[in-house]
Amino acid sequence: MEVVRVLHMNGGAGDFSYANNSLLQLKVISMTRPIAEEAISNLYCSTLATTFTIADLGCSSGPNTFMVVSQLIKTVENIRRNLCNNPIEYQVFLNDLPGNDFNAIFKALPSFHESFKREMGDDLGPCLFTGVPGSFYGRLFPSRSVHFIHSSYSLHWLSKVPEGLEENKRNIYMAETSPASVLKAYYGQFQKDFSLFLRCRAEELVGGGCMVLTLLGRRSEDPTSKECCYIWELLAMALNDMVSQGIIEEEKLDSFNLPKYMPSPTEMSIEIGKEGSFMVNQIQVSKVDWNVYNNNDESNGLRAGGYNIAKYMRAVAEPILVSHFGEAIMDELFIRYGEIIVDRIAKEKLEFVNITISLTKMK
Amino acid sequence: MEVVRVLHMNGGAGDFSYANNSLLQLKVISMTRPIAEEAISNLYCSTLATTFTIADLGCSSGPNTFMVVSQLIKTVENIRRNLCNNPIEYQVFLNDLPGNDFNAIFKALPSFHESFKREMGDDLGPCLFTGVPGSFYGRLFPSRSVHFIHSSYSLHWLSKVPEGLEENKRNIYMAETSPASVLKAYYGQFQKDFSLFLRCRAEELVGGGCMVLTLLGRRSEDPTSKECCYIWELLAMALNDMVSQGIIEEEKLDSFNLPKYMPSPTEMSIEIGKEGSFMVNQIQVSKVDWNVYNNNDESNGLRAGGYNIAKYMRAVAEPILVSHFGEAIMDELFIRYGEIIVDRIAKEKLEFVNITISLTKMK
Repeated sequence: MEVVRVLHMNGGAGDFSYANNSLLQLKVISMTRPIAEEAISNLYCSTLATTFTIADLGCSSGPNTFMVVSQLIKTVENIRRNLCNNPIEYQVFLNDLPGNDFNAIFKALPSFHESFKREMGDDLGPCLFTGVPGSFYGRLFPSRSVHFIHSSYSLHWLSKVPEGLEENKRNIYMAETSPASVLKAYYGQFQKDFSLFLRCRAEELVGGGCMVLTLLGRRSEDPTSKECCYIWELLAMALNDMVSQGIIEEEKLDSFNLPKYMPSPTEMSIEIGKEGSFMVNQIQVSKVDWNVYNNNDESNGLRAGGYNIAKYMRAVAEPILVSHFGEAIMDELFIRYGEIIVDRIAKEKLEFVNITISLTKMK
Repeated sequence: MEVVRVLHMNGGAGDFSYANNSLLQLKVISMTRPIAEEAISNLYCSTLATTFTIADLGCSSGPNTFMVVSQLIKTVENIRRNLCNNPIEYQVFLNDLPGNDFNAIFKALPSFHESFKREMGDDLGPCLFTGVPGSFYGRLFPSRSVHFIHSSYSLHWLSKVPEGLEENKRNIYMAETSPASVLKAYYGQFQKDFSLFLRCRAEELVGGGCMVLTLLGRRSEDPTSKECCYIWELLAMALNDMVSQGIIEEEKLDSFNLPKYMPSPTEMSIEIGKEGSFMVNQIQVSKVDWNVYNNNDESNGLRAGGYNIAKYMRAVAEPILVSHFGEAIMDELFIRYGEIIVDRIAKEKLEFVNITISLTKMK
């Protein structure tokens, strides 16, 4: 599986599109916003750049895409206006893999741009939007050209499925039943990928430039901890049921593994230390309920909530699942997944763990 | 009609797609390549930039998109390697209106990138591709950030249909029967648009930066000259036939005009002089046969050639025609248009006139 060609959120604006199923991601962006705002404010004050370059890595396509960047620009504008500085130019790089629905972003751009200009008034300088298709596990921008890099809910995707997962049968990610070799292979791939990510960004950021990265992770040092693996174990359960019933071939499931890794803060800090270009300003661990609509008190709401979780997971995981299992089983798979989730969230409170890390490139 | 939302070449990879009907544009790019190569060579030698930024305005989507840019990079690489300079970074801005099929470009990028790297060898620095959705009658790039701007077959599109064309009934562009007020309105819009284009690019180019622009134009000072207007008069003829037969409402045709202008070299020079930031290195006028396959000697070939012209005109003009006349009449319109063209090219040799202009921004 070539992740760079296969991985993308569901495009378009349909029922299972990412654009219509990204409330969880929006909530996480809002929760972690203060950290991004603090970092970009300090950065503007220390550089007073007249062309301020912002990149969003893994921008996807949907309402969140413009929301992130417009909030960052607003933050800088507030300070600039308070300081009575002249209008500045914003260069905005929206990055995602080449399969992302950039057409949808670009078609929405003129209306967004107009309403943003109306909101911000005449004093706003040019906001120059560009799309950057490519893997962030490689160079994306010229050397020393970017001031601020933001990324939310993207960096838990690896550049590829680790090698050496042959023994991870019936699982699709690390799980309690995964042998040690599988855990080692996943961790090794994370180390390679994250250190490459840091090296590339270190080249691209200006001296003193900042990154605020949020990704799915875990507090525990155990990589098979429920807090990171459970959501995927439930999907594996649905797939296994379909194998038992002869709908999916056993071999097909055995050979599928997700190119993901949800690290602990310590694992991230180790790679940052080894790479050596960045200073850690802050690491924040936060939690967000799987059931983002959070109307657990009614049983109807709970049922809807469970299916809703399956739906937003579908928006994220469908293209990669289709590339391996084919289109035909998707509806059934996600109905089964939804049922399993409804059952579980009725019994316990389940949460994702987010790690947000704010870094400054040393000069 | 909002040109910025409506104008784009036919997307995808179907029979009427621009990707499959852009041989004419490819021929023009090849014809004018020496001028672009000379300009970019001189520019590299005079700046020796370590990040070289190239923009293609109106890049469309299809084989020509990567062809232009890869040729420009190859030209710079040849000189760099001859001079034994270290590898440099290329920042490539691919610009078109937001309705352009950027997804198709981006999906083709990984394969293009791989084969380009294979062809150029290990000594090639990072080539960083970005898509820039927006009208070139406005700011696209940060101040003083671009070294070389290329544009082929795009700048004859205006930012909007000129105002005051009410008397241009039964025509869809300037024609011999157009009243003077119509010619004046078109020329006025060209002046406004082209001078705005020059002002924006003057801000974006580095001092000494270059532009090589090729557009459809005319040698004659008469704006209704056959050499620029005839191809559209024949389309108007097909539309008028359909009005006579009640397929299109008369009012519908009367209210349609193309947002295009095909200037003379003098008209372009006047605006360049007025704007004042650019030095003209070269103006070249060239011609290209409508029948780009050029197998006029056989009558079968001629027939195929005529329909082929209608097909590439469809790839270019369909979205804008659909936005006014609706989808339903397109097949019939272009069959009629093809018949008219077959008839004309049998009687005379018909050619487009291209103007290529090479400019340097004064420091």
